[in-house]
Amino acid sequence: MSIIQEKSAQAVEILKEQETDLWLTFVRETSGVRDPALDFIIGPNDLTWESALMFTRSGQRIAIVGRFEAEAIQRLGIFDDVVLYDTALSGVLREMLQKLAPRQIAVNYSANNVHADGLTHAMYLKLQTYLNGTPFRDRLTSAEPIINALRGRKTASEIQRIREAVRITEEIYQKTFEHIRVGMTEKQVGARMHHLMVEHGVGFAWPEESNPAVNSGPDSPVGHSGPTDIQIQPGHLLHFDFGVKYEDYCSDIQRMAYILRPGETDAPAEVKHGFETVRAAIENCRAVLKPGIPGKAADAAARDTVTAGGYPEYMYGTGHQLGRVAHDGGALLGPLWEKYGDQPNQLVEMGNVYTIEPGLAVPGYGYVGLEEDVFVTENGAEYLGGPQRELVLLR
Amino acid sequence: MSIIQEKSAQAVEILKEQETDLWLTFVRETSGVRDPALDFIIGPNDLTWESALMFTRSGQRIAIVGRFEAEAIQRLGIFDDVVLYDTALSGVLREMLQKLAPRQIAVNYSANNVHADGLTHAMYLKLQTYLNGTPFRDRLTSAEPIINALRGRKTASEIQRIREAVRITEEIYQKTFEHIRVGMTEKQVGARMHHLMVEHGVGFAWPEESNPAVNSGPDSPVGHSGPTDIQIQPGHLLHFDFGVKYEDYCSDIQRMAYILRPGETDAPAEVKHGFETVRAAIENCRAVLKPGIPGKAADAAARDTVTAGGYPEYMYGTGHQLGRVAHDGGALLGPLWEKYGDQPNQLVEMGNVYTIEPGLAVPGYGYVGLEEDVFVTENGAEYLGGPQRELVLLR
Repeated sequence: MSIIQEKSAQAVEILKEQETDLWLTFVRETSGVRDPALDFIIGPNDLTWESALMFTRSGQRIAIVGRFEAEAIQRLGIFDDVVLYDTALSGVLREMLQKLAPRQIAVNYSANNVHADGLTHAMYLKLQTYLNGTPFRDRLTSAEPIINALRGRKTASEIQRIREAVRITEEIYQKTFEHIRVGMTEKQVGARMHHLMVEHGVGFAWPEESNPAVNSGPDSPVGHSGPTDIQIQPGHLLHFDFGVKYEDYCSDIQRMAYILRPGETDAPAEVKHGFETVRAAIENCRAVLKPGIPGKAADAAARDTVTAGGYPEYMYGTGHQLGRVAHDGGALLGPLWEKYGDQPNQLVEMGNVYTIEPGLAVPGYGYVGLEEDVFVTENGAEYLGGPQRELVLLR
Repeated sequence: MSIIQEKSAQAVEILKEQETDLWLTFVRETSGVRDPALDFIIGPNDLTWESALMFTRSGQRIAIVGRFEAEAIQRLGIFDDVVLYDTALSGVLREMLQKLAPRQIAVNYSANNVHADGLTHAMYLKLQTYLNGTPFRDRLTSAEPIINALRGRKTASEIQRIREAVRITEEIYQKTFEHIRVGMTEKQVGARMHHLMVEHGVGFAWPEESNPAVNSGPDSPVGHSGPTDIQIQPGHLLHFDFGVKYEDYCSDIQRMAYILRPGETDAPAEVKHGFETVRAAIENCRAVLKPGIPGKAADAAARDTVTAGGYPEYMYGTGHQLGRVAHDGGALLGPLWEKYGDQPNQLVEMGNVYTIEPGLAVPGYGYVGLEEDVFVTENGAEYLGGPQRELVLLR
C-alpha cells in the first residue's frame, strides 16, 4: 500500500472519530501555492484547475477536477469517483454537496498549524461565493483537528522512513567529526556535510542556506542563518543543527563538540555544566512526554531544567513535530506565547514524532544546543536514534 | 544587481504608479505554505516565525521577523530596516503601522491570480485580529495589481533567463527527434528527454510526471497526464508538451512530428490541414498581441482560426504568462469562463511573456498542438525561440 493509500484510509477513520461529515480540500494551480494536505491525498502530483477533493465520514472519496487532469487523478487509485468539468466547477460542486448533504464541511484553514492552513484567503471567499444560496455556505469549519491527527499519527511506513533519515543523519555527523580540523571555517564544514548528503542520496529537511547550521565559538551568530567564515579554534564550542529528507520524511538533529586547547584533556567545567544541563533538560522532557499531556507540560520540564541550571530561559519552543517537514504542526512542546497560538495546549498523541531541543550559551565558549528526535508510544517517548550523551572532544 | 534587488526596486515603482501606500507580505513557516511573492522579495530563503515584509510608496523597505532570522534577512541587502521580535509580532507591527500611517495596505490575496494569492485564510483572519482597534483593520486591500505588474513585467535579467530556457528546450527537442525510432514507447521517449535535461543541467518547469507529455497516435490520452506504454507507429501524429527551468525561469513549448507510413513522402492532407490551422492560429494570435489589448482578444484570434478551420473549439485558454512558473498569472489569453475569473479582461503589458498554444484533434491520427513562447515589446509580440513552421517528418 502506498503512503497516500495508507493516509487516505486513515483520513476516513479520523472523520468517523471526530464526527465530521465531510473534509474538502479546495485547490487550484498547486504548482504555485500548494496546500500541504495534498501530500497525503495525491502525493507529489499537482492540479492546475480548481479542484475539490472530498472524503466523507461514510468512506466516500470523491474528486472533482478539470477534464485534462481526470486521467492522472484516476490513476492514483485513491478516489472512487472522479468527476470532471470543462469550464466551471461551481455547479458540479453544488450538485455533489446536495447529494452528500454534509452537516459539516471541514476546509483547510488553521490559525495554529501552518501545515493545516493551505486554503488561501481568496479561495475561501470563492468557495463561499460558490455556495451562496445553499445551506452549505454556513457549514464551513476548520479542518485543523483532522489534519493535525492525519499528520501527527505516523503510520508504520512513515516511521520507517523517519528512522532511516535519522540513521543517515547520525552517519553523516560521525563522518563530519572525523573530518574536522582546527582552522577549518564553518562554511568548509558545511560544504563537507553537503557532499556527504549527496553520497547518501538524501535531500534537505529545510533549505540548504541554513542546513547545516554550524556555529564555532562565542562570536558565531546562532539561529536560522548559515555557516560563516569563522574558523574553528581551540576553546570553541562547536554546534550543529542539521536535518535530511529521506523519501519525503525528515530528521532534525543538533550535535555538540568542544575543541580542546593545548594541555586540556577535557572540556572546562563551565562547558561541561552547560552540556549536562541541556542533556538533563532533554531527559526530563522525554520522561514526561506521553499520550494525553499538553505540549506545554513537556516544554516546561526542559525549560525549568535550564533555568534551574542557572541559565537564562531560551526564547523558542522546546520541540516541534517532525514528519514530511522538519517543523511539522499540531501539538507543540512550547510555552503559551502568542506566536505559538493554541498549539502548546494541544495534546500529545500516540504515533507522534517530536524534536526535543533546549539550548543555552556558555559565555566565552559558544552555544550549547542538542536536539533529539523521539517517537511517542503508548508507554512514553523513545529515541529514534542514539542520543548524544557525551560532548565530542576534538583537537 | 541580483534579481531580488531588481524586483524590489521595481516593486516601489509599481506602488508609486498605482498610488498604493504600503504592500505587506505577511507569512509564517514558509517551508510549509510558501507565498509566491517571496521569490521576488527574499529569493529562495524561508521564514519560520510570523513575519511582515513591507514596501512603501515612499521607498521604505521594512522587515519584521523573529530574532533568529534577522541576521539572514539583513544579509540579503533588500531591507533598510530589519526589526526583530521574540514572542509576539502584533505589537511591533501595530507600532510600525502607526509610524508609517498607510492609507492602503495591500496584502497578498487574489481571486484571479493564484501567484498573487499567497496569504492563507487563517493568516488573513490573524492579521485582522492584530489590527483590531486600529484604523488599519479596514485598510486591507488586494495586492493583485501590484503582484500582477511585478511578475508580469520582466526585467532584463529575467528575459535573459527565459531565453536560455527556451534555447535549451529547443536543443533537447532537436536531439530527441534524432533519437526517435518506430516501436519506441512514449515512456522511453520521455525518459530520453529526462536524460537530456540532466545533461543540460536544467530542472522541470512543471512536475516530471507529465513533463514531457508525449502523445503518439489517436489513442493516447492528451492532457496533463504522463507518457504511456503506447508505441510510436507509422501513421501516428506525435505530440510533445515540454518545459524546463533554467536558473528559476521556465520555458513551455509544444512540438509536433508525423511518422510516415511505407510509401509516404509527406503527411496526409488532413494531417497537414490540422498542422497549418494550428500554425495559422498562433500567427493570428501573435499578430494582435500587443500592449493595451485585453487577453481575451488575443485568445479569440487563435480560437476563431481553429473553428474556422472546421475543428471544434479547444476547451482551454490559448495562452498564459510564463516566468518563474510555467503557468504564471495576471492577464490570460483566454475566454471569459468562470474558471479563469477576470484574467481574460486584464490588459497585456510591455515586458510580458506569454505562451500561445491552440490545439485540435485529427481523427485517426492524433492530437495537433503547438506552443510558442513570445515576449511583448512596444511594437508587438516576438518569438523567444524559433517557432515550428513545418511538421517534423520521421520514419
